[in-house]
Amino acid sequence: MTMMMNENKYKITIIGLGEFGKIIANLLYSSPSKNYQLIGYDADSNTHSEMKKSKILDKAEWNLKTATFDADIIFICIPKREIFELLKNLKNFVKKDCVIIDTSIFKKEISEFADTLFNESISFIGGSIIFDQQINSKDSQNHFVLIPSSNTSNESMDIIVNLLKTINLSPLFFNIDEYDNFMFALYGLPNLISTAYRNLMMQSPSWREIKKLYGSNFMKLSELSLKEPEIENDLVFLKEQLPSEWIKRFNKNFAYLTESSDNSHQDVINDSEIYREKFFKFKQGINPNSDVSINTNDLSGGMLELLLGSKLTRYFKNSDRIEMNNTSKKDKK
Amino acid sequence: MTMMMNENKYKITIIGLGEFGKIIANLLYSSPSKNYQLIGYDADSNTHSEMKKSKILDKAEWNLKTATFDADIIFICIPKREIFELLKNLKNFVKKDCVIIDTSIFKKEISEFADTLFNESISFIGGSIIFDQQINSKDSQNHFVLIPSSNTSNESMDIIVNLLKTINLSPLFFNIDEYDNFMFALYGLPNLISTAYRNLMMQSPSWREIKKLYGSNFMKLSELSLKEPEIENDLVFLKEQLPSEWIKRFNKNFAYLTESSDNSHQDVINDSEIYREKFFKFKQGINPNSDVSINTNDLSGGMLELLLGSKLTRYFKNSDRIEMNNTSKKDKK
Repeated sequence: MTMMMNENKYKITIIGLGEFGKIIANLLYSSPSKNYQLIGYDADSNTHSEMKKSKILDKAEWNLKTATFDADIIFICIPKREIFELLKNLKNFVKKDCVIIDTSIFKKEISEFADTLFNESISFIGGSIIFDQQINSKDSQNHFVLIPSSNTSNESMDIIVNLLKTINLSPLFFNIDEYDNFMFALYGLPNLISTAYRNLMMQSPSWREIKKLYGSNFMKLSELSLKEPEIENDLVFLKEQLPSEWIKRFNKNFAYLTESSDNSHQDVINDSEIYREKFFKFKQGINPNSDVSINTNDLSGGMLELLLGSKLTRYFKNSDRIEMNNTSKKDKK
Repeated sequence: MTMMMNENKYKITIIGLGEFGKIIANLLYSSPSKNYQLIGYDADSNTHSEMKKSKILDKAEWNLKTATFDADIIFICIPKREIFELLKNLKNFVKKDCVIIDTSIFKKEISEFADTLFNESISFIGGSIIFDQQINSKDSQNHFVLIPSSNTSNESMDIIVNLLKTINLSPLFFNIDEYDNFMFALYGLPNLISTAYRNLMMQSPSWREIKKLYGSNFMKLSELSLKEPEIENDLVFLKEQLPSEWIKRFNKNFAYLTESSDNSHQDVINDSEIYREKFFKFKQGINPNSDVSINTNDLSGGMLELLLGSKLTRYFKNSDRIEMNNTSKKDKK
């Protein structure tokens, strides 16, 4: 790692040049403070050829070993179900002190797998870009989620945080369980709901008649089911627990319609009005990321661990990293 | 009614000049065979002023009585909850043999209300435009749903069917219960689902954290809840029965996630693949309305009544209306 910091050119490899891989490549390639060689690898030969012509990479490599054996940082941008096999392959190639960043949607299972697979010399980090979708402001600030695994060294976290800053991505820390939970709620659940609705309509014996009247609401709700089939497959990995809890809570929201209850329809509609207002304000451009960096100054050690997990707490407590003003002052106990 | 058929100019009034009212007005005003005076009425003064400048009406009237007292045909294009009061008012104004067409989303309750309110001299019909959303063909054919009430005379059905033909809308007949059922499934249910999801997210104690990660799936599923709040209110009128049945069926689609069941995740995902294919084909432009006109020639009296209800069966059995080739031949029993 010392070597890497001292040399002018280090090497970053992006594995998987789909939509997300291209975004990362573009950001890294166009950075004004670019002091690294940017390599791209994709198993798909079409994507590979396309990349040769594009200007978002220094080099496109056909061979996984050639692409990764001397990489200092590797971004993995392939579907979750392919990652386990890839990590097993990478273990044979990558050099000591390499930092591997996985950008797939759910983190925990892969992170645990990587912890078992790699020894301490390789730092594995869960990551994801969060685009600021603020509408009414010019000062948009995109973020990059960082979730270290138990093998992640503080030095490699530093390197990644600094790298992200050069491409204007502000780090955003989450506890791994919390992150998977929220991502399921925001991405997996809508997909499952859309699929359930689409199946309900299409398995109906009246579908032939129903479809004559189809319109925008039907289409809007069904479309998610078509758009991201791979999420459905990823849910097989997640097992029952996470989906089950959210689905149960979701189903409860219909109780006023399916069970005789104390809540009248009108009560529910009035309550709903409150959330509609809240959603409307949210959507109208109140910056969802305005309080985006966890202010570690406000948290004592115990609270910090509860929120960030032991790994990140260790990271924060050991240093004044990432422009924290006075962590040590508040963290003295 | 005889008078109306013999005169060159009869009078059509559109009540409510919102999105839907404007579409009807535009179609009727630009008809090449226009032989009627087209009047518009809107309770909202802004809409009223806007209409004075537009070229989709012969006249905009401030006064409901003036707008409707000598109308031969009235299209009602206002929200469902306001219709009951309007119908009570219209009863005092409208002339004998007037045809009133209600275009609100759910039909049965209003139709029954109109049946009780009006005597046989006024024909009340439920109606709605269904746009052909066929993608791959140039020959699009829009339709107009027609659902007669028990007071609707065959003569007025004839007049409306012929009027619709002049503006290139092909009539589409539904049984009233079936129609409400399907419209709930296609419009009300997505709205309720979207609302339930949005409320679930916003009532979560973690919403402050969750919203940092929000993205397209969350937005897509939440947006319906914001777009058509009036549907939520209309559902109060529908009472428990219709929503309850659909919601129960919808919730069952998650059973594989919330209950231990014989179906494995993979089974469900495989089944889902079949519906995805089906939906994909449907969406790719297989004309959903290609079999859109019920072929009454294929139906005996009993079947016809089951499908269309007694009123429409009477209509079809009494005459060879609407270009049916040989109904009487098959309907001889």
